[in-house]
Amino acid sequence: MQWKSQLHNLKAYQPGKTMEDVKEQFSLEKVVKLASNENPYGCSPQIQNFIYDYASSHAIYPDGYAKRLRMKVAGHLSVEPGQLIFGNGSDEVIQIISRALLDPSKSTVMAAPTFPQYKHNAIVEGAEVREVPLDEEGRHQLSKMLDSIDGTTAVVWLCSPNNPTGEYIRKEELLHFLDQVPSDVLVVLDEAYYEYVTAGDYYDSISLIESYPQLVVTRTFSKAYGLAGFRVGYGVGSRDVIGKLEPVREPFNNNSLGQGAAAEAMEDQAFIEQCREKNREGLQQFYEFCESTGLKYMKSQANFILIDFGLSGDEVFQYLMSKGYIVRSGGALGYPQSVRITVGSREQNEELISLMKEFLAVIKQS
Amino acid sequence: MQWKSQLHNLKAYQPGKTMEDVKEQFSLEKVVKLASNENPYGCSPQIQNFIYDYASSHAIYPDGYAKRLRMKVAGHLSVEPGQLIFGNGSDEVIQIISRALLDPSKSTVMAAPTFPQYKHNAIVEGAEVREVPLDEEGRHQLSKMLDSIDGTTAVVWLCSPNNPTGEYIRKEELLHFLDQVPSDVLVVLDEAYYEYVTAGDYYDSISLIESYPQLVVTRTFSKAYGLAGFRVGYGVGSRDVIGKLEPVREPFNNNSLGQGAAAEAMEDQAFIEQCREKNREGLQQFYEFCESTGLKYMKSQANFILIDFGLSGDEVFQYLMSKGYIVRSGGALGYPQSVRITVGSREQNEELISLMKEFLAVIKQS
Repeated sequence: MQWKSQLHNLKAYQPGKTMEDVKEQFSLEKVVKLASNENPYGCSPQIQNFIYDYASSHAIYPDGYAKRLRMKVAGHLSVEPGQLIFGNGSDEVIQIISRALLDPSKSTVMAAPTFPQYKHNAIVEGAEVREVPLDEEGRHQLSKMLDSIDGTTAVVWLCSPNNPTGEYIRKEELLHFLDQVPSDVLVVLDEAYYEYVTAGDYYDSISLIESYPQLVVTRTFSKAYGLAGFRVGYGVGSRDVIGKLEPVREPFNNNSLGQGAAAEAMEDQAFIEQCREKNREGLQQFYEFCESTGLKYMKSQANFILIDFGLSGDEVFQYLMSKGYIVRSGGALGYPQSVRITVGSREQNEELISLMKEFLAVIKQS
Repeated sequence: MQWKSQLHNLKAYQPGKTMEDVKEQFSLEKVVKLASNENPYGCSPQIQNFIYDYASSHAIYPDGYAKRLRMKVAGHLSVEPGQLIFGNGSDEVIQIISRALLDPSKSTVMAAPTFPQYKHNAIVEGAEVREVPLDEEGRHQLSKMLDSIDGTTAVVWLCSPNNPTGEYIRKEELLHFLDQVPSDVLVVLDEAYYEYVTAGDYYDSISLIESYPQLVVTRTFSKAYGLAGFRVGYGVGSRDVIGKLEPVREPFNNNSLGQGAAAEAMEDQAFIEQCREKNREGLQQFYEFCESTGLKYMKSQANFILIDFGLSGDEVFQYLMSKGYIVRSGGALGYPQSVRITVGSREQNEELISLMKEFLAVIKQS
């Protein structure tokens, strides 16, 4: 078969151990997964009612225009319906952008470490990937990213708050970047964790699109909205940019229940506010743990925290897993001495912190 | 923005009128849509129970490996789990194949008219599209398709039963084609309507993969299984071919409820058999209508029928729509004098046939 040459060494995503696998392997009764930045409080309770009452036939194709959801999101963000593109998760919006703009003659610029799907899709398209290291605090170095742009650069990826560091891009840096970047370079600002942000100086990124028509902001229903199982994300941009992306979108890419659940979830902003508040309190638990034990960590605006143990993250991961807590080793995330922990419920956080203290005591003894 | 040049004239999918639009426009109480080859009997009644009883949190990401569904389908088809790739509808499997193999240096061969997503995806990838007309009976001309293949050809698309004609590729023709086609050309056999086939000489296409490792068969849960709203389709191929496609698949492309509903639906093969039988009876109603009125039609192995009215299909479409029946005008399908009708329930078919008789009487008078 005439596979594209760039695919020869590309690996498929390797799914992690399931909770069932871990239960069995370690003979555990309870396993908690704080590895994928899911919402520990689930989703709005309205969703279950929506699903029970769902009146349409499952045999009917979804609305390819996602009209009801589109109108809700447009209203909520004060944008026109034609400024939105919906994806099967924001993953698919990333894919659509890559497919529309990248090929072997192009380059694309992103931070490192950051969300891996930017690089993965760029490789599939055969584009040159230019990675600009985050600074010591886990923040984008926007001036170095600017320096990496040349005439071949078609897309720049920004992630704020950044996965896996939780740090965010400051407004003045972002504006300076947008002022300097060539006007034919698409700038994607991935705000998958936007709803968790509590920093007082965070900005309304959507309102920047009017002044910077090359900006596309992506968001998702998979994190704070607690709808990861449904796969719904979206991009917001100028009508022109969205209009060019639309033909690359599959006609029926958003499943019917996902569209409905997301529209329903938009109605319950109180749920989002509660989750944001509880998440902030949860982060505080981890900050206090790190301060009291002297572990390095990064201040997070997301629903996860990256903690530096100064030794193999894999080892920490293995220990916690054997006790029933699945977190993410930093090994695969570009921080081999860290683990990334999704903020859980207060009780989950307490239990996990106890286990980490236990681990540190074991390490100290040996 | 540096959009790929092949996208400049590509149009986004234009969604048809919704049933609500039609109700309003013509002040109708009831509207029946027989336009998208959906299952008029819905899906297995087990699905609703599955959804009510769904015990996982919607906040959790889907199983990226679709293990439960994978095992069910593998067992049903007697293939290995690694021979399957699941898509967000078989549309996405078509997209994945295109993305893995097509670029501006490649060509791809398909029938015309056929399912439009092959061509659409080839255009997105910038590949040369070579269309080989169907014969008068709406069948693939496989020998002419063979002649269209050269060193640049990376993928050939076969559709059986073919959309929009309903005709199928005969076994001896398929085998002859597979024997002749160069071994580095991927052959996709799209069997979206496989479950509706009643032709005694239809073949077990999956069993051909062992002898022809370049063959990928695609199927879907959107048609006979009645799960179009969930978006689940799949491809079956050799382990090697599927392994090369997997890295191009998004890690969480299949939503959780869709995976579960499809797995559940596999269990109720009696439902599929009933739908196949009722569909055959429904086709018979349309055959008799055509015979009695002298209209030309094609024998169908799918859940739709293409009827040639010898005048503008758009006109037939408009008339039927004004009476509350939405069918598909052949205008957009490459048969401007025809309409494509999804086989509905017996009562729906009867009512639609009455309306078509009424239309023919009106035409005769004018």
